[in-house]
Amino acid sequence: MSRRRRIQRVGVVAKVGSPEAASTAQELSEWLRRRDLEVALDETTIRAAGLAGETPFAPTEPYDLLIVLGGDGTLLAVARTLASGVPILGVNLGNLGFLTEINRGELYPTLVQVLAGKFDTEERALLDVELRRAGGGAPQGFRVLNDAVVTKSALARIIELTLEVDGHLIARYRSDGLIISTPTGSTAYNLSAGGPIVHPLLPVVVLTPICPHALALRPFVVSDRSLVAVTLETQREEVYLTLDGQEGTSLGHRDVVRITRSPNVVELVKINVRSFYDNLRGKLRWGGLSSDDPRPAS
Amino acid sequence: MSRRRRIQRVGVVAKVGSPEAASTAQELSEWLRRRDLEVALDETTIRAAGLAGETPFAPTEPYDLLIVLGGDGTLLAVARTLASGVPILGVNLGNLGFLTEINRGELYPTLVQVLAGKFDTEERALLDVELRRAGGGAPQGFRVLNDAVVTKSALARIIELTLEVDGHLIARYRSDGLIISTPTGSTAYNLSAGGPIVHPLLPVVVLTPICPHALALRPFVVSDRSLVAVTLETQREEVYLTLDGQEGTSLGHRDVVRITRSPNVVELVKINVRSFYDNLRGKLRWGGLSSDDPRPAS
Amino acid sequence: MSRRRRIQRVGVVAKVGSPEAASTAQELSEWLRRRDLEVALDETTIRAAGLAGETPFAPTEPYDLLIVLGGDGTLLAVARTLASGVPILGVNLGNLGFLTEINRGELYPTLVQVLAGKFDTEERALLDVELRRAGGGAPQGFRVLNDAVVTKSALARIIELTLEVDGHLIARYRSDGLIISTPTGSTAYNLSAGGPIVHPLLPVVVLTPICPHALALRPFVVSDRSLVAVTLETQREEVYLTLDGQEGTSLGHRDVVRITRSPNVVELVKINVRSFYDNLRGKLRWGGLSSDDPRPAS
Amino acid sequence: MSRRRRIQRVGVVAKVGSPEAASTAQELSEWLRRRDLEVALDETTIRAAGLAGETPFAPTEPYDLLIVLGGDGTLLAVARTLASGVPILGVNLGNLGFLTEINRGELYPTLVQVLAGKFDTEERALLDVELRRAGGGAPQGFRVLNDAVVTKSALARIIELTLEVDGHLIARYRSDGLIISTPTGSTAYNLSAGGPIVHPLLPVVVLTPICPHALALRPFVVSDRSLVAVTLETQREEVYLTLDGQEGTSLGHRDVVRITRSPNVVELVKINVRSFYDNLRGKLRWGGLSSDDPRPAS
Repeated sequence: MSRRRRIQRVGVVAKVGSPEAASTAQELSEWLRRRDLEVALDETTIRAAGLAGETPFAPTEPYDLLIVLGGDGTLLAVARTLASGVPILGVNLGNLGFLTEINRGELYPTLVQVLAGKFDTEERALLDVELRRAGGGAPQGFRVLNDAVVTKSALARIIELTLEVDGHLIARYRSDGLIISTPTGSTAYNLSAGGPIVHPLLPVVVLTPICPHALALRPFVVSDRSLVAVTLETQREEVYLTLDGQEGTSLGHRDVVRITRSPNVVELVKINVRSFYDNLRGKLRWGGLSSDDPRPAS
Repeated sequence: MSRRRRIQRVGVVAKVGSPEAASTAQELSEWLRRRDLEVALDETTIRAAGLAGETPFAPTEPYDLLIVLGGDGTLLAVARTLASGVPILGVNLGNLGFLTEINRGELYPTLVQVLAGKFDTEERALLDVELRRAGGGAPQGFRVLNDAVVTKSALARIIELTLEVDGHLIARYRSDGLIISTPTGSTAYNLSAGGPIVHPLLPVVVLTPICPHALALRPFVVSDRSLVAVTLETQREEVYLTLDGQEGTSLGHRDVVRITRSPNVVELVKINVRSFYDNLRGKLRWGGLSSDDPRPAS
Repeated sequence: MSRRRRIQRVGVVAKVGSPEAASTAQELSEWLRRRDLEVALDETTIRAAGLAGETPFAPTEPYDLLIVLGGDGTLLAVARTLASGVPILGVNLGNLGFLTEINRGELYPTLVQVLAGKFDTEERALLDVELRRAGGGAPQGFRVLNDAVVTKSALARIIELTLEVDGHLIARYRSDGLIISTPTGSTAYNLSAGGPIVHPLLPVVVLTPICPHALALRPFVVSDRSLVAVTLETQREEVYLTLDGQEGTSLGHRDVVRITRSPNVVELVKINVRSFYDNLRGKLRWGGLSSDDPRPAS
Repeated sequence: MSRRRRIQRVGVVAKVGSPEAASTAQELSEWLRRRDLEVALDETTIRAAGLAGETPFAPTEPYDLLIVLGGDGTLLAVARTLASGVPILGVNLGNLGFLTEINRGELYPTLVQVLAGKFDTEERALLDVELRRAGGGAPQGFRVLNDAVVTKSALARIIELTLEVDGHLIARYRSDGLIISTPTGSTAYNLSAGGPIVHPLLPVVVLTPICPHALALRPFVVSDRSLVAVTLETQREEVYLTLDGQEGTSLGHRDVVRITRSPNVVELVKINVRSFYDNLRGKLRWGGLSSDDPRPAS
């Protein structure tokens, strides 16, 4: 539990479309201002609350703390564009999440502790995703906390991708697509597609094919210092690059997606004794699950 | 090897966009006409060959034999709309297929035998797929030989489906989609998604989720006399129903897809001693594969 | 709900080593005898209760009803040797089972109904397992309700098996073993090894490799009218044939295990409206499992 | 390509029971002695060749080079007990291996280069495996290059294990067993059991259940600085701890297996440009495998 610099500027971002998140955000901003803190609410909440004139939250500003009210999805969305070094406190308004640290009921007690500087942070890796079009032009850059996914549209047939790691050809995948996941994202889409669970602090990236046609193609764990390059070999089919399952862009023949670890990281406020393993047991219902057992007992 | 009724009317369908298939189709139609058979070429080939004036192949006509030149995909496309009781001889112009019976080099010797009535057929089940829109209106009907798939678009988030079998709730799937496969289709998309291989003549349907979120959701084999009903519970996401991976239509909230075994069947000409099992070994490289073994030998 | 022949002779079998099952068995036998029924308790319970002199339950006798007190395992053990045509009522003393129909609390109300002949039965397929030793000699015969498994010992290296179906070579498996499962057994070991769930009344057998080395080897569903033959190709390693996970015998080089559907069936008393699908949802926790979802929601 | 200390003492170990390996070993030892090198042949080869009086190879001696003639299995067996810092050159006499660097035909040209000091080595992690008996007594120590596996015997029923990582409870597994694998071992048993492929130089350990009953139990990648502890909760069933699939010892109720990264490493001579990825493509037949594709092409 380290002492940190004094917190003065606080960003507050509420889940879009959630009245509960919006009202919690307003209540929270008043609570923070009463403590002489400078608060920046997200633009949607400002508009919804008719607070015209306030300066909205801007992800590139150097806040001392960002409080996210919603779920893992809301946190993912803001983490992709946040300035480096801003600790994020995730407050879950629904089910237990992997990224959100506390529940609604723990908000104010936790904040008292956090404002006193009594908290640690956990650094989560981000991936930088660079899209180089076959036709040339300036590369586009993106950032992800969970995963970058190359995937065919519903109506497309099978697609073919070339995967290279540090210049070595790994495979030509004929599949529905390929997931390039951080350890943080390993419990998300990667897990549904058959990939392994990875401890969030390991220096690795997971490459997991989606419904591969060659059954020998399996999830593959590589170093996060590697350069992963995926080239779309298929012509004429609709294919997309999606980012944390939230944004997407269309891919064309011979477009290349290059993925490296980002120099930026996401800093999650850790205040609970609850570990990653506890979350995992809760979310996946591991541990002592005798009634889950499909084999007959005598 | 049964004696069959005399063959007089023959349909010939070539793979679209394949010059080799088109030229083989023309050569074949001349060969058949020299034997006083009535030949109907598919419309695309007629047009490509400048044979205006010919009556093109019509899938609903009662041909005595249909010859498909191409691959499994070409055969799938025509089988969905074909009148019942027309034996199909599939000629593979590329790699070994599961549905095509012979290679290009075996075409004329095989035809001599087939025209003499010396062949058996194997009946493959079709599924009737009925789409009932939430908003009412007349149901739309489709037919598949491989599979009907409900699947999200690339940019959609997770979708939720309710699966019922004979009126019993099986599961609410949160997944990328669900495959409803015939035994014939079990070696296609179903296999890539983790489903089992099913002998083609079994009276069953395979229900396989695509990247399910609840890891306990597994492929499920039910009777082909069952009524399988899939309801889309998700709102606002782009979701599609695709048929044999070749056609598709958009699905909306609370639309229901109802699947039953079709009274029609596809009759495949069987002339080889090569069994389904031989094909499987060839396609999947089963059997005696010591160099495939990833574990070290001493 | 059909009318059946009058029930006069009832067998009662209790789970071995369970004081609760033993005392329930004694109480039940008194209850039945007060209704002028002839009761045969299993030998272990007789001995434990000091009831010397009673004629014990004999599986080959033609009882009108068999009541099993315990779990799926106890029912499996007695079902393998039971005379055909004896309806089995399974009473679960622990967790919900797939084979046991009712809980302890439902025992007497259910029996009143069953003794009045108001019940249906569901026929479950058994497999006949014949072991032919490489060295000759009379074949040994076994019967299973769930599965026959050929598997290596813990200390053995990889083993190699040849699998043939109706005389066709399917594969040479290098694996830890192979499961040959009935539909009833599909939710048992087969499911843990990656096999599909199969509706219990389908006329099929599931062949599922255990940890296969060639990753293209996948679960395979064949007709229950097929002859499945498994030959052990490996020399010098310790290998076993196990039956319903309860009995086992050592296998030697070139020993052959031949499996066919048994002419006998197991008849399970069905009295609940609860379907196989309801059991499945309960056991596997399917359906509406939003908190099971490892992907973040927004 | 670094310059190394002069090579003077060379160990030579041949695959047990292979006449080809034994004769190659003798030929090789003469070739080496003609170059004034001190050679220690393994004891089995010495005996087989009637070379009584020679000092046999001793794994704890500080050789300057160890040449292994055989396959991955032979290299595994010697690597477990080898003194740290001895470069191993693996010569494959059979199929391509993951650990052996060269084929028989490349032996002498490679040795000329190696004896001139022109080679690099690649450090592979070993795991230290400590077995603490429930009944007390001194712990037993083992070392593995591929994997430590806790697994039930063929005739045992389901076993239950508790898995802890750094003191955190991860899960109670009901399964056939659990594989604790190095990155090197990830392409061995781990892969057959559904685990991911891991780049051999990553600082991780893979925990993969074998046929788990709770379907949500999935392969799990943790840091190799973690302490992994597996406790056997099951009583009365036969359970074993096996080491690299080659040695084993019986486990009892509440025995604990504790696994940490070994301070020792295995140093593999790397002389080929062939990378891990090339080996993988060769072994698993990845890359451009159009005929492997089970889905129909059109």
